[in-house]
Amino acid sequence: MSTATTIGVIGCGYWGPNLLRNFAENEAAELRWVCDVDAPRLEMVKRRYPFAETSSDYTRLLSDDDLDAVVIATPVATHYRFACEALRAGKHVLVEKPFTASVREAEELNEMAERGGLTLMVDHTFVYTGAVRKIKEIVESGELGEPLYFDSTRINLGLFQQDLNVVWDLAPHDLSIMDFIIDRQPEAVTATGSCHIKQGIENIAYVMLRFADEFIAHFHFNWLSPVKIRRTLLAGSRKMVVYDDIEPTEKVRVYDKGVTTSLDTSLSVDKETAYRTLVSYRTGDVWVPKLDSTEALRHVCQEFLNAITERRPPLTDGRSGARVVRLLEAAQASISRGGQSVKL
Amino acid sequence: MSTATTIGVIGCGYWGPNLLRNFAENEAAELRWVCDVDAPRLEMVKRRYPFAETSSDYTRLLSDDDLDAVVIATPVATHYRFACEALRAGKHVLVEKPFTASVREAEELNEMAERGGLTLMVDHTFVYTGAVRKIKEIVESGELGEPLYFDSTRINLGLFQQDLNVVWDLAPHDLSIMDFIIDRQPEAVTATGSCHIKQGIENIAYVMLRFADEFIAHFHFNWLSPVKIRRTLLAGSRKMVVYDDIEPTEKVRVYDKGVTTSLDTSLSVDKETAYRTLVSYRTGDVWVPKLDSTEALRHVCQEFLNAITERRPPLTDGRSGARVVRLLEAAQASISRGGQSVKL
Amino acid sequence: MSTATTIGVIGCGYWGPNLLRNFAENEAAELRWVCDVDAPRLEMVKRRYPFAETSSDYTRLLSDDDLDAVVIATPVATHYRFACEALRAGKHVLVEKPFTASVREAEELNEMAERGGLTLMVDHTFVYTGAVRKIKEIVESGELGEPLYFDSTRINLGLFQQDLNVVWDLAPHDLSIMDFIIDRQPEAVTATGSCHIKQGIENIAYVMLRFADEFIAHFHFNWLSPVKIRRTLLAGSRKMVVYDDIEPTEKVRVYDKGVTTSLDTSLSVDKETAYRTLVSYRTGDVWVPKLDSTEALRHVCQEFLNAITERRPPLTDGRSGARVVRLLEAAQASISRGGQSVKL
Amino acid sequence: MSTATTIGVIGCGYWGPNLLRNFAENEAAELRWVCDVDAPRLEMVKRRYPFAETSSDYTRLLSDDDLDAVVIATPVATHYRFACEALRAGKHVLVEKPFTASVREAEELNEMAERGGLTLMVDHTFVYTGAVRKIKEIVESGELGEPLYFDSTRINLGLFQQDLNVVWDLAPHDLSIMDFIIDRQPEAVTATGSCHIKQGIENIAYVMLRFADEFIAHFHFNWLSPVKIRRTLLAGSRKMVVYDDIEPTEKVRVYDKGVTTSLDTSLSVDKETAYRTLVSYRTGDVWVPKLDSTEALRHVCQEFLNAITERRPPLTDGRSGARVVRLLEAAQASISRGGQSVKL
Repeated sequence: MSTATTIGVIGCGYWGPNLLRNFAENEAAELRWVCDVDAPRLEMVKRRYPFAETSSDYTRLLSDDDLDAVVIATPVATHYRFACEALRAGKHVLVEKPFTASVREAEELNEMAERGGLTLMVDHTFVYTGAVRKIKEIVESGELGEPLYFDSTRINLGLFQQDLNVVWDLAPHDLSIMDFIIDRQPEAVTATGSCHIKQGIENIAYVMLRFADEFIAHFHFNWLSPVKIRRTLLAGSRKMVVYDDIEPTEKVRVYDKGVTTSLDTSLSVDKETAYRTLVSYRTGDVWVPKLDSTEALRHVCQEFLNAITERRPPLTDGRSGARVVRLLEAAQASISRGGQSVKL
Repeated sequence: MSTATTIGVIGCGYWGPNLLRNFAENEAAELRWVCDVDAPRLEMVKRRYPFAETSSDYTRLLSDDDLDAVVIATPVATHYRFACEALRAGKHVLVEKPFTASVREAEELNEMAERGGLTLMVDHTFVYTGAVRKIKEIVESGELGEPLYFDSTRINLGLFQQDLNVVWDLAPHDLSIMDFIIDRQPEAVTATGSCHIKQGIENIAYVMLRFADEFIAHFHFNWLSPVKIRRTLLAGSRKMVVYDDIEPTEKVRVYDKGVTTSLDTSLSVDKETAYRTLVSYRTGDVWVPKLDSTEALRHVCQEFLNAITERRPPLTDGRSGARVVRLLEAAQASISRGGQSVKL
Repeated sequence: MSTATTIGVIGCGYWGPNLLRNFAENEAAELRWVCDVDAPRLEMVKRRYPFAETSSDYTRLLSDDDLDAVVIATPVATHYRFACEALRAGKHVLVEKPFTASVREAEELNEMAERGGLTLMVDHTFVYTGAVRKIKEIVESGELGEPLYFDSTRINLGLFQQDLNVVWDLAPHDLSIMDFIIDRQPEAVTATGSCHIKQGIENIAYVMLRFADEFIAHFHFNWLSPVKIRRTLLAGSRKMVVYDDIEPTEKVRVYDKGVTTSLDTSLSVDKETAYRTLVSYRTGDVWVPKLDSTEALRHVCQEFLNAITERRPPLTDGRSGARVVRLLEAAQASISRGGQSVKL
Repeated sequence: MSTATTIGVIGCGYWGPNLLRNFAENEAAELRWVCDVDAPRLEMVKRRYPFAETSSDYTRLLSDDDLDAVVIATPVATHYRFACEALRAGKHVLVEKPFTASVREAEELNEMAERGGLTLMVDHTFVYTGAVRKIKEIVESGELGEPLYFDSTRINLGLFQQDLNVVWDLAPHDLSIMDFIIDRQPEAVTATGSCHIKQGIENIAYVMLRFADEFIAHFHFNWLSPVKIRRTLLAGSRKMVVYDDIEPTEKVRVYDKGVTTSLDTSLSVDKETAYRTLVSYRTGDVWVPKLDSTEALRHVCQEFLNAITERRPPLTDGRSGARVVRLLEAAQASISRGGQSVKL
């Protein structure tokens, strides 16, 4: 146990218990502190993890010299403050998504971490799923050809929050997935949304990213959908991927479909001839790769611990967190300006 | 047979044969003329409908005093010219969607038809499906409550055309459905698209309509999707409808789901409590109404014939055609200006 | 806590932890003892439920006068012995499914429990799901009309066991569901199966029950299916129910479909006319009722506790357990005799 | 046209029009005669195919020396008589499924055809689908390993017939598919059914075939199901195929799933350990092969014409027709004897 990284978790609300469980089960970690302002919740944690210290005062964690790392699972508005103090106290930090409430906060934290030689990681959980890692592998192999578009839908009836709109709540998932899979940066954001439940809190939003070429990325986020859809299309010139996160096992499908634009000859009056002459569609087999089904959060915790030990940036470091926050901020700005394009 | 409306069809390419078959089978109609510039195709029509006259010269139809009505199923660029001449010749006219290539053309045709006391109808086929008519009925009953949003996805691998982009090809379907179901007019259009196959011809596009209040409508059109999706969500404050046109029979589902925004009291740090306290979601039964499964085009032809006989405007008259063309034109303009909002 | 029923659980393998959790969370129960022969597993339980006593010797539970009830979650071969001794010690008993390894064992236990005035219940978990209880409600309302058939498929790749065949493993679920929903007893069983993995242990089996009239029930059980299917069709003369347990929420669908056999007149040579003349099919709406989504096992535990307190037979008492075992025994006998019909 | 095989079709009810269309469109055939007892239907055929002779008297076809082949699409009870007379008149014969009403009839026809050197083929349409031919190819490649079971479900609400039960109506499809794919003959049949609509006409039936080893085949046929299912599982020791005919394009899925029965060592009390120790399940990728989407009936007609021209037995010759009828007869016998096993 002496070589294990000691962990303190601040915030045990919605996602916190999952972090507690994963760090408690990881042999490279020692769950040393749990902090929350809610007494009964802390009591429950105490019963579940009797070996961990509990407190409603986070400064007790920070002043514990034997604590190596702090995990922050509090509302986003407080991320900056907790992370800032933890880094100042010399702790490595893992922050829930979204990283921070603004790009400025994100950049300050990144600079602090770099100056202090500390690990700063963002819990972009989806990046660690078997599905997303498989898609990354497929994209990197080049078999999709030129990337054409990324289209993502994440909608459901659920989880309205009073302080965050649907973009800040759901977009970190898909933006971090895109940021991980597609190795290129968007140039402009357009976003629109609507507030049906509470003024000022968008519960439905559409976000569009433009890049230097014809590649585009589009996102639909929605808390008021009668059906749950979590589907991403990633089209390449040679193959296309559909990632359907609702599917229990067959989440990723690779379609050997594409289009060949060979000839542009005669003018034809009817659709069918036009279609046959000018553009040839190619349809082949579909392949459903087997995926690693390990809980993604387990990989998140392991990556955090490894990055600390190996003194290297984690896969989803503060830089990737900042890139996502930059997109969130720009999307929010575009929504406020009625859908005007915001340059990045 | 003497009381039957005599019909002449111009254009037998992609959709024409369906029109021929439906008018041939309709006892209130007499298929009298078929016109196409393609000789072998005309020959085939001749064999199939030996009782109809065929010609590659459309003026022969127009000069036939015994011909009551003309159906135009040619490329959109030619709609205006054919419709214009047919109206001038005193014929009733049914035009394929999209009605015309511009609002100006649409308005001229509408004025001509009104001056001449002639029926001018647009073949917005989907409006006549059992599914769309059932949704209209549900909306009119008021059971959905306040309409919140309309979200439509029509994507597939297919049917690239060299002279029309995906908006002009696919959007008439969903815009005419929305125009029929939602009795209100949008105030602004934003649209973006990308050309992956041929420069200047968008093969993927996203269109957003804004209305006077928080109601919004969003559309995704795509010729380069590996999967075929045709799904519309129509959310109301009390109930929500999902229209999935891919489903063989259960195309329309009515969800007794909604949100109640009663209280806005205490501040809470965790998601679950926030969700329970502030917004109460209501989830009830799902209802899948039985639908009329008659071929929609049969209703289209019947409506055209009835409107002529009863001297009344058809359900999808030139005015509705013009409204759809106005949206297409505005969407195209917004795409050209990089997604800027276009007032209507 | 003094009025809570004290619970001791014997066996913490596959299903045991779920029972532990549910009794631990139930305020009407006090988890007092946990027994298992596996030391590390017992250690894990101890950490999780520090307030409970643990032992590898089940006689310690039975000799604790303050223990009210015993839950038996051990392999089926041992159910009789443990239940027998527990009843003899004056404990109320909840037994995992299948109840016992033979009808004789089941009947002895039932007699013992009745003589001792003790509650004896079988954990037929599926009977307590929102789906099955809703179907029961629908059947009892009479809206299905005359019941025609019950057809159940429970197949997957998985969980091969060396001492139990697929019938003893999976059939208790569907037989207990049928026993609960359909208030009638079968007269004969026919069953066939095949052993692809290990001789003598069927991994695929088909079971057919015949009743006094034309109502039939058929079951497909399979450990070697590439796809997971858990679907039951329950057809009535007026309506039909499909219960798909794989669906996340819409598990039960009620089809307003039926057949009317009105006329039997003329002889007709072609199918279509025959179909129209003789039998009229009725197709109406589909209704997807909202279901209680409480974990079924929570209801199981509550029913056990209530039955003890209220001194009444539980919903799935030893009698229902015995009826299911009788069918399992008969199915096994039919399989052994190459699919011969076995009278009940 | 002089080298085309001349075709006469007897019976234009349910399936006849499809045969007419396919032979009319096939350049190697000349549709010369159409015969039906129903005058209006014959009139419609005349309008559609003005070049063909029509008659209500089939002897006129048989006495036409220029007619090469006869297609019989009448009710099954009449197949033998028409086929017999056609063969006697020296015509090649294509018969709708089921081939005949008895094995004796089937064998007589086969002998007549062989004596006369005439082509005798049965329209087992499904054998000619892209899906079934792909599965055959996969099975022949050996990649499935040892065949374990064949499980087929063909159920729907529909098409009740007064003279045929559900087995004679639907089973020819699945039995001919199995006969084609699996190159082995069953040894015994067990079947049970129920008559909910009309006495003596089973509308639901389960058929089980036993083979020399542990391979089994099971079939569920049903006219009274609220949902349409047409799915076949074909499991091998190394891979498994699911054929879902309802899927629009992805009808065949090959699962790289299997079971390895390596060790049979220690006794274990809990399920999870047992599963891990004794049997190892293998789960890999899923492969969805692209299928030929040509209408199967087109291949049927072509095969008939080719077999005639090349003087070779067609793929689904009278022998395969007889094998299917033998199974139908045995299934019927088993149903009549209350599900007793019938040796083949």
